Amino acid sequence: MFQTERRFLRLLFLLCILHYEAGQVFGVWPMPQQITQSTDRYLLSPQSFSFSYSKDSAAQSGCSVLDSAFKRYYSLIFPDAADGARKTEFSINTLVKSGECDGYPDEGSDESCEYLLFIFYFVNKTEIQDFPRFEFRGLLLDTSRHYLPLNAILKTLDAMAYSKFNVFHWHIVDDPSFPYQSYSYPDLSSKGAFHPMTHIYTQSDVKRVISHARMRGIRVIPEFDTPGHTQSWGKGQPNLLTPCYKGDVPSGTFGPVNPILDSTYQFMSGLFKEMKSVFPDSYVHLGGDEVNFACWKSNPNVRAFMTKMGFGHDYTKLESYYIENIVNISSALNKTPIVWQDVFDYRERHRPQYVVEVWKGGCYLCEVRRVTKAGLKVILAAPFYLDLPGPTHNWARYYNVRPLAFKGTDQQKALVIGGEVCMWGEYVDATNLHPRLWPRACAAAERLWSNEEMTSNVDQAFPRLEKFRCSLIRRGIQAEPLFVGYCKDEYRGV
Amino acid sequence: MFQTERRFLRLLFLLCILHYEAGQVFGVWPMPQQITQSTDRYLLSPQSFSFSYSKDSAAQSGCSVLDSAFKRYYSLIFPDAADGARKTEFSINTLVKSGECDGYPDEGSDESCEYLLFIFYFVNKTEIQDFPRFEFRGLLLDTSRHYLPLNAILKTLDAMAYSKFNVFHWHIVDDPSFPYQSYSYPDLSSKGAFHPMTHIYTQSDVKRVISHARMRGIRVIPEFDTPGHTQSWGKGQPNLLTPCYKGDVPSGTFGPVNPILDSTYQFMSGLFKEMKSVFPDSYVHLGGDEVNFACWKSNPNVRAFMTKMGFGHDYTKLESYYIENIVNISSALNKTPIVWQDVFDYRERHRPQYVVEVWKGGCYLCEVRRVTKAGLKVILAAPFYLDLPGPTHNWARYYNVRPLAFKGTDQQKALVIGGEVCMWGEYVDATNLHPRLWPRACAAAERLWSNEEMTSNVDQAFPRLEKFRCSLIRRGIQAEPLFVGYCKDEYRGV
Repeated sequence: MFQTERRFLRLLFLLCILHYEAGQVFGVWPMPQQITQSTDRYLLSPQSFSFSYSKDSAAQSGCSVLDSAFKRYYSLIFPDAADGARKTEFSINTLVKSGECDGYPDEGSDESCEYLLFIFYFVNKTEIQDFPRFEFRGLLLDTSRHYLPLNAILKTLDAMAYSKFNVFHWHIVDDPSFPYQSYSYPDLSSKGAFHPMTHIYTQSDVKRVISHARMRGIRVIPEFDTPGHTQSWGKGQPNLLTPCYKGDVPSGTFGPVNPILDSTYQFMSGLFKEMKSVFPDSYVHLGGDEVNFACWKSNPNVRAFMTKMGFGHDYTKLESYYIENIVNISSALNKTPIVWQDVFDYRERHRPQYVVEVWKGGCYLCEVRRVTKAGLKVILAAPFYLDLPGPTHNWARYYNVRPLAFKGTDQQKALVIGGEVCMWGEYVDATNLHPRLWPRACAAAERLWSNEEMTSNVDQAFPRLEKFRCSLIRRGIQAEPLFVGYCKDEYRGV
Repeated sequence: MFQTERRFLRLLFLLCILHYEAGQVFGVWPMPQQITQSTDRYLLSPQSFSFSYSKDSAAQSGCSVLDSAFKRYYSLIFPDAADGARKTEFSINTLVKSGECDGYPDEGSDESCEYLLFIFYFVNKTEIQDFPRFEFRGLLLDTSRHYLPLNAILKTLDAMAYSKFNVFHWHIVDDPSFPYQSYSYPDLSSKGAFHPMTHIYTQSDVKRVISHARMRGIRVIPEFDTPGHTQSWGKGQPNLLTPCYKGDVPSGTFGPVNPILDSTYQFMSGLFKEMKSVFPDSYVHLGGDEVNFACWKSNPNVRAFMTKMGFGHDYTKLESYYIENIVNISSALNKTPIVWQDVFDYRERHRPQYVVEVWKGGCYLCEVRRVTKAGLKVILAAPFYLDLPGPTHNWARYYNVRPLAFKGTDQQKALVIGGEVCMWGEYVDATNLHPRLWPRACAAAERLWSNEEMTSNVDQAFPRLEKFRCSLIRRGIQAEPLFVGYCKDEYRGV
């Protein structure tokens, strides 16, 4: 079922823009690469509508991902449709040129011409040809700072699909809690979760998330962030974290993962081996951000190790040493690592192959330039932090991001594989997740999907986004308002 | 049923603090005036718990407001209680000293010693004596900029009761829409609402809101804001708004209510007569804020009227003239008017009796001082604007408000009857209303209910508020998190 080599085309993202309703066709979001519209309008009835596979399509009826998507979107288009006899007058013709239809989505799904997908919508005299600008359009949820019930994650995946996001970056564990129930190391969640029974993700939960995502063309990339952000790990895995010292004696507190012990790498190997069996994606996120060196510095054994390794007093070298080991572990498992930019910033001369996720504010494009100049792929997250409780109502700040507006060669720009919306969990749980994400994340989605020149005008985008947010509401997504106004169907899930 | 003269005591607000659960008794919010706690703990079982009326209580069994509250809170305390035989071992003894139990709540309900309510909780060896610091603890919802489905309002009333708010200020109409379905002037909503059938409040809806509020000891004060903020009124009531001029000819646009026509006052009399029959509260909010004089200035008839009245070029005098007429209309109907501070700022020498709501930022306590110096009552809203999409996560900004920290006599301070949380609707509808209100509004609630000295420490309040927010979640209120952490029962209404 899962495979990463053969590529399959993700049709389902594109389907959501077919939402016929008087005037609604202008509410297409994100903007397709090519769209021609006429005001001529034809009655589209449930009986005269169908999806079909093109004769030349590699995928045909029986491809469950597409068949399920057809069914789902038919209900979205015609919520009140009686299941009567159908005549094919209008149709969406699906042409899959190559690829394994029912495979697990992978990074090649929509990146090259070879695998381009063309759909022609003959609705409302509209013709659309579409493909994404960036192959990686991610959204991060943080399930450690607050636990998110499974439904909140599944609902987020639904909304992601409507907005054509294709990567769910699951920041599943962190300092506050370890909700992932590992079958190799069950103590990690039984001792490290907020609650060992109610605030965990079982193997069955994880499977459900991956399956729900797959049916919507979304890949699931787990992040097991180390060596920092691991306080909760220490509760269930003795000797994993570095004991901090006060003078000559242990203080009783613990710092980052202990990088000087063989047992650390044995444990990490075991955990990542489990990861490989649980998460089918070819990417794995290794974290590597915000490592506080104070505890390492306080520990005499760590200091001795520094001397032995010739690191002097440069603890970034120790971090690099640690990360390189972890990168090697994951590479040996055929996983492509993603790391936060700190790892790149602290890199040693020997540079392992990883994708760098740029997250720090300030001149983030300067960092993008540096990383691509070093020949590494980049995911841009810095301008898409949507979790901040600051003045975040202004969706245009995300819309106006120009991911490629740095000085660099074409080769460098091609290394920017996409971007990612980050919804960190300090102030976010299931009570406010959805309205904080939607529709602001849609602004980032269009930036990552659409042609930048066609979508550079905020004023023109506004009414389209307003309509799209009403579509989200109609589909049960708790998307907050952009400004004064109303939707035909208001959110009533109170 | 409804009466404003006889006073009745609101017990129900106080009941919500009885929420027995190991350790939870320390999560009392807002802080009672007196509380003594011991760590001694007794098992409290559903079978051994009851509410009862004190022998000396004026209200006895049969008082539906209290009987219903008892039933409601019993279920909240014991959500899984089997309805078995009960023995009264622990009890809450209710003593109502005077007043009509089943009456409509009014402004005297908890303001004086005469009507003080004492409840003794013999749970967890805790004794509480409680009464509110301010009689007016309001919360404003704006149903014009976005329509709020009835459920969203009812749910807000539930949460208000848990936090001991006692006034629902219903900013029901404004420029964008007129959702109130008037039986005297049905065109106001049929032409002025976002949608004449789906985005309105019928008479039955309004009755339901008032009844739901009454059962929770909450008064409903409607606001029909004039002469500004009335664009939606003009759609269903011809000749009500001032025609704006461009040079010598009408421009086709309209400004505030036309203050120079008799027909205006006839209409307003008719509308307020309806208000009196629909809304039982002794207060009515007349608005009077943010009147833009440009349109009045452009209109030659208005200018002629100014000359005739000897107002010169001072349009604040025209506004005062208008408001005075409206105040007189409502006073004749035995309604006490509340107005936004603009009306006070523009006052003529002849000062009608109204309550002034202070809303403008800057030195709001300077304004409170001026208003009370003029002998008028004040409601303080300025520091409690919770709708702003700015950096609003910091609940402490509302908690740290000191409503009486101005130089003034005791008489002046006594004129500050309370405060009000304002949730304006530009960026708020049912999708984000609840998490934006709760638990931040609780910070304001404690400021208005509790002794200021006992509740001046943010750090001490924080864990109590965190626990209270978990109680709100458990009761189905979508209250957002304050910071990293978890509740035993997470919000799952996704």
